[in-house]
Amino acid sequence: MIQAALFGAGRIGRIHAGNLVRHPGVRLSAVVDVDPNAAGALAQQHGATVRTADEVFADKSISAVVIGSSTDTHADLITRAAKAGKAIFCEKPVDLDLARARACADTVKAAGVVCMIGFQRRFDPTFAAVKARIEAGEIGTPEMLVVTSRDPGAPPVAYVKVSGGIFKDMLIHDFDIFRWILDDDAESVHAYGSCLTDPAIGEAGDADCTAVTIRTKKGRLCVINTTRRAAYGYDQRFEVLGSKGMLQAGNHRPTEVTFAGSANVSTDLPEHFFLERYRAAYAAEIANFAAAITEHAPVKTTIADGVRALELADAATRSWKEGRAVTL
Amino acid sequence: MIQAALFGAGRIGRIHAGNLVRHPGVRLSAVVDVDPNAAGALAQQHGATVRTADEVFADKSISAVVIGSSTDTHADLITRAAKAGKAIFCEKPVDLDLARARACADTVKAAGVVCMIGFQRRFDPTFAAVKARIEAGEIGTPEMLVVTSRDPGAPPVAYVKVSGGIFKDMLIHDFDIFRWILDDDAESVHAYGSCLTDPAIGEAGDADCTAVTIRTKKGRLCVINTTRRAAYGYDQRFEVLGSKGMLQAGNHRPTEVTFAGSANVSTDLPEHFFLERYRAAYAAEIANFAAAITEHAPVKTTIADGVRALELADAATRSWKEGRAVTL
Amino acid sequence: MIQAALFGAGRIGRIHAGNLVRHPGVRLSAVVDVDPNAAGALAQQHGATVRTADEVFADKSISAVVIGSSTDTHADLITRAAKAGKAIFCEKPVDLDLARARACADTVKAAGVVCMIGFQRRFDPTFAAVKARIEAGEIGTPEMLVVTSRDPGAPPVAYVKVSGGIFKDMLIHDFDIFRWILDDDAESVHAYGSCLTDPAIGEAGDADCTAVTIRTKKGRLCVINTTRRAAYGYDQRFEVLGSKGMLQAGNHRPTEVTFAGSANVSTDLPEHFFLERYRAAYAAEIANFAAAITEHAPVKTTIADGVRALELADAATRSWKEGRAVTL
Amino acid sequence: MIQAALFGAGRIGRIHAGNLVRHPGVRLSAVVDVDPNAAGALAQQHGATVRTADEVFADKSISAVVIGSSTDTHADLITRAAKAGKAIFCEKPVDLDLARARACADTVKAAGVVCMIGFQRRFDPTFAAVKARIEAGEIGTPEMLVVTSRDPGAPPVAYVKVSGGIFKDMLIHDFDIFRWILDDDAESVHAYGSCLTDPAIGEAGDADCTAVTIRTKKGRLCVINTTRRAAYGYDQRFEVLGSKGMLQAGNHRPTEVTFAGSANVSTDLPEHFFLERYRAAYAAEIANFAAAITEHAPVKTTIADGVRALELADAATRSWKEGRAVTL
Repeated sequence: MIQAALFGAGRIGRIHAGNLVRHPGVRLSAVVDVDPNAAGALAQQHGATVRTADEVFADKSISAVVIGSSTDTHADLITRAAKAGKAIFCEKPVDLDLARARACADTVKAAGVVCMIGFQRRFDPTFAAVKARIEAGEIGTPEMLVVTSRDPGAPPVAYVKVSGGIFKDMLIHDFDIFRWILDDDAESVHAYGSCLTDPAIGEAGDADCTAVTIRTKKGRLCVINTTRRAAYGYDQRFEVLGSKGMLQAGNHRPTEVTFAGSANVSTDLPEHFFLERYRAAYAAEIANFAAAITEHAPVKTTIADGVRALELADAATRSWKEGRAVTL
Repeated sequence: MIQAALFGAGRIGRIHAGNLVRHPGVRLSAVVDVDPNAAGALAQQHGATVRTADEVFADKSISAVVIGSSTDTHADLITRAAKAGKAIFCEKPVDLDLARARACADTVKAAGVVCMIGFQRRFDPTFAAVKARIEAGEIGTPEMLVVTSRDPGAPPVAYVKVSGGIFKDMLIHDFDIFRWILDDDAESVHAYGSCLTDPAIGEAGDADCTAVTIRTKKGRLCVINTTRRAAYGYDQRFEVLGSKGMLQAGNHRPTEVTFAGSANVSTDLPEHFFLERYRAAYAAEIANFAAAITEHAPVKTTIADGVRALELADAATRSWKEGRAVTL
Repeated sequence: MIQAALFGAGRIGRIHAGNLVRHPGVRLSAVVDVDPNAAGALAQQHGATVRTADEVFADKSISAVVIGSSTDTHADLITRAAKAGKAIFCEKPVDLDLARARACADTVKAAGVVCMIGFQRRFDPTFAAVKARIEAGEIGTPEMLVVTSRDPGAPPVAYVKVSGGIFKDMLIHDFDIFRWILDDDAESVHAYGSCLTDPAIGEAGDADCTAVTIRTKKGRLCVINTTRRAAYGYDQRFEVLGSKGMLQAGNHRPTEVTFAGSANVSTDLPEHFFLERYRAAYAAEIANFAAAITEHAPVKTTIADGVRALELADAATRSWKEGRAVTL
Repeated sequence: MIQAALFGAGRIGRIHAGNLVRHPGVRLSAVVDVDPNAAGALAQQHGATVRTADEVFADKSISAVVIGSSTDTHADLITRAAKAGKAIFCEKPVDLDLARARACADTVKAAGVVCMIGFQRRFDPTFAAVKARIEAGEIGTPEMLVVTSRDPGAPPVAYVKVSGGIFKDMLIHDFDIFRWILDDDAESVHAYGSCLTDPAIGEAGDADCTAVTIRTKKGRLCVINTTRRAAYGYDQRFEVLGSKGMLQAGNHRPTEVTFAGSANVSTDLPEHFFLERYRAAYAAEIANFAAAITEHAPVKTTIADGVRALELADAATRSWKEGRAVTL
């Protein structure tokens, strides 16, 4: 039985805890959080104990950690966990600073521990089906990827200020999807940004709408459009054009009800936000981690993927700020 | 903590067990099955013990039973459970024989115990949303209900022979949906049946395709079409026309992938069969039962509903066999 | 050059005239209408002259007639045209009285003239594609037909009173579609009717909602549901289940615009009513008639089809009034 | 009665001729084409005569010209027609050379004649409905436009070589749509291009796939993705995100048939190519021209629009070739 510790008893930590304990062979034995009440409640629910980070890293019986605490703690916790020889699952991003993220990756590599970054979208049933069908050759050679990635509303400006900017905070998922789906990498990136939904975001030096184009090493094209605020909710679509056809990943809806009234024919809005939309994906990524630590299964989203997505986000940020395409 | 016993450790029993143990306040303490291996495996998984029916009914600490054993055991187990004062969840149908089903309902009523029949479709998110929106007045007064209810394939003929016939075995769900959605009841039923998919079904005296029409007490119309074998899978749709509009419940799909190839544009087939399609509904119905036994919540599908659906199935069978509409 | 005469310069007459004159080899030379203004305007538009029925039937240069005048004139005009040796296109129905319709058909047969009845739906691109794909074997053997046929609003009660009733006035199209799509005929018909949208229709002795089931000679099943008033407009769908799959004919919409707002995702209502929905079909049926009179092409909707649809409507009416299934 | 002359009796010329003659008040009296057979056949069909360009421009009775001849003739014919005081409808583009196009526009302006450029997409029912609904405020302030514009197959390389390149030949429509839909103009344009479908196109110095992003004067973002060859056909979609919602213009299909088989659920491919997809738009744009010349209605697509779209195409071409964003 693998003993695991959880860092962060907030919303995403609780989701990971609930998914983790479903797996025979894995037990949640420790919860660490700056808020003792949050840690205590979650620990009690799963029969774990509240511990400090030092205790966790010193405890040889704990062989895996799940890091769901705030972004600024990721690099330090990954580094300490790696040095302590523990398997690591960490929420994205590795770090907002590229140099620190790379250093983290080096430490992980040197330690030779399992390390998985939480790009849950790769585990979404719809997205994963697109990937599998591309690999099965259904659309021939991929030529173009169009990603629509829109949030239902902007986070508080206080968060925006420490978020690393929209490219690192929000598009980092899309940059990971881009590499994964096309099985290719960026040669050059161009980004436009605008502040159209909330002036306070612009005053904080960030954009809330972006249009990013990427030309890959193989000459393929990728366009990503993003906004912090879509009035109709969380819009998560992409489509891949290939030489033999196109595969589209559409939004998921809470129900399959259609209403025909005197004005129009209507269906549900998309699933509300990431917690609803990616519920199955969160379960599947933790299942991958559980399989990695109990059966040596390979992890599908490595720390190298995390670093690469950050490099793309960095390049897009520079492109936007400097008004030019950036070659990687 | 409520102690519950499960009768039937087969496919549906295992699903109910998994859903039941999620609820704080309810514990699965006993499993009964004619197959000791099946009972043992399921009991072990949930920390329960294998018991006989006699032991369960004699055990005062067990206050609830979940009946997922074969149809011919339902009436007897309901009756014994009611007399033992235990809360009851029983899979549909109550019994294939209307007189026995009515006697069961009388016993339950006399005992005053909670008794819920497993019409899980009422708990489906899509179907429940249609019901809620009708009640909210979105389509005004309901006037017509059109139900399409098709299985992906017929059961073995050996099963067909003891199933009570297609109207009791398959349409019983649709008869329940009809009463629930229209909040009305049948005045008259007419049924056509044909054997078109497998001659062996016809030789067994049953139909595999049916077209049933119902005129309700309020003059509304309902049409139900059913087949045992739709080549494209499990087709579970209905639509309600009202004075102000229409609500349609559509099929659910495994993914939201669309493929555009050289021949056409395609999407997934519907969810494979009832276990996939009604996964959320199975969880929600057991949640209703758990709430009923722990918090005295009302059950949404009573044994009276079970008896009434059987009466409709009986009338439809007679209509088909006698070639005339049957007034209820 | 074929000279044709038009009876009826109303809405449908003007549509037929416009479609007819597109065909090289056919000229509209005469217009007959009880309203001289209507006749005059239409004649002028197409370079025709206003004539009386007697003049048309006496004029040997006129070899074809298009009858778009009121229903009560159809049988007489068909009979006179047949006796005068002229090719005939007549709007449905042949007549409201089955005996007169049959007599008409006999006269046409004896005269040996071309006679086409205006069941335009067979010429609709969507409906015709379904038919062609069934014939190509895409769904294997047809087993079940489900027809949804709903009008956006009831005609004036004054019209209802002389319409022959909903089965002859409205479902006659569906009865024709049924025979054509299944390439089969009714063995037995059962109909329920209700008056739910306008009490005045009930007082006039008619129904405004119907549920009709048919069992065919080959044992196939057909269900038709109809209303005079769907709040969301003109709803013209059908689906055919076969041994290998299903083909559905869906509604057409004015545009392919989708709106995602804060409440839901919506699309257009269906095309408003039959003139919009079947615009292409009206053109195609007259093209068939033009081909029949200029190139001896076979007509796709014969007077025998018109008589048979009326027989079905008659049987459905009796079933509804007498509360029993009617064997044909 | 307005007498009009048509230049170009090819495919698009024949379509314009057919649409033009539907309008009372306009007569096609002359057809000019380098191929006398093509000119003769079309002239005969519409009761026109075959003329030379010189004859047309000298004929005072001809007050309008429709130019559907090859691109290299447009500027000269527009100039001569303007000087002769004739109303002009000309297919896009005005000219491949920006300076010549601007000179043309100056001549037209000096002459004060009606001049309409054939951006038919503005007249498409779906696209026009999106525009009208934006103007009605349904989505609040537009913020982002995403255009997918894909052809079913590349033209012959011989044509590619004289086409002016993909940005002038193909995206010119999208650049016009962009300005019209957003009611805004480009501040800066960035374009990536690749040759992925046919190496011969790359050898001819052109791209066959493009990803263009535009930042408007008001800070809005537009992304356009284009390919010369989509395996599934002609893909013409766009979507506009605004502060209150999103409007999407989807593809049109030949029929509304859905097939559910054992593998998937499928619908028709989009309308085959521009002649099918924009049939209604071609009719509507000529109706606008007819209204302009008979009733002084304003034309919706001016030569200034034609010049501006060319400027955008020029900027995009430079961006692609020089590897940088181009400010307009």
